Amino acid sequence: MKNKKINIRKKLNKFNDYWSPKVITEMNDYQFKLAKISGEFIWHQHKSTDEVFYVIKGKMIIEFRDSKVELCEGEMYVVPKGVEHKPFAEKECHIMLVEPRGVLNTGEEKNELTAINDNWI
Amino acid sequence: MKNKKINIRKKLNKFNDYWSPKVITEMNDYQFKLAKISGEFIWHQHKSTDEVFYVIKGKMIIEFRDSKVELCEGEMYVVPKGVEHKPFAEKECHIMLVEPRGVLNTGEEKNELTAINDNWI
Repeated sequence: MKNKKINIRKKLNKFNDYWSPKVITEMNDYQFKLAKISGEFIWHQHKSTDEVFYVIKGKMIIEFRDSKVELCEGEMYVVPKGVEHKPFAEKECHIMLVEPRGVLNTGEEKNELTAINDNWI
Repeated sequence: MKNKKINIRKKLNKFNDYWSPKVITEMNDYQFKLAKISGEFIWHQHKSTDEVFYVIKGKMIIEFRDSKVELCEGEMYVVPKGVEHKPFAEKECHIMLVEPRGVLNTGEEKNELTAINDNWI
């Protein structure tokens, strides 16, 4: 996949499920993923890595235990490693995530929202 | 900078020089950079890392020794490590780059196009 150009819009047209990040490419041992989100996710953290959120379409909120940040289209945020956070979107929102290969969407937690890892489109 | 949201458009309004990547945030030991490009860059390679190009506005071409790829708005490409490439843009184009901290824009080459490293906006 590394040697093909990736059209973000076309990739987003390939799936409709929420909270289930799809890998679109890799650089070194990092993966770029797309996700569609809507509603509330769970509180979680990633103990060994920062996590990049980049909003492609719509609006999302990342809640922290003591604050929150609202991200609109064209805005990005880096959640530092070990920081508990809970993503939320009132309406459907499309995002890009960047994180090392192997990171689970629910971090240290595992529940019904834990998505299949390394799911390429 | 890690704990602030980053608005890509606002960051792009902060500079006008070409071929001089500006760091907008970091995750782990990786940096996200914005650049405005126009015209021809030089042939170069990055021996120890892949490099991500993501077009935010406009159109660019990445030439390789045996092929080339055209990237439009919303398209990305990962140049594998060690692969010689020459970016080109007929008109001004705005891009995001992702690469490990410390990577020079001209790779293993150093010339008048070598930009200051770790230049934050």
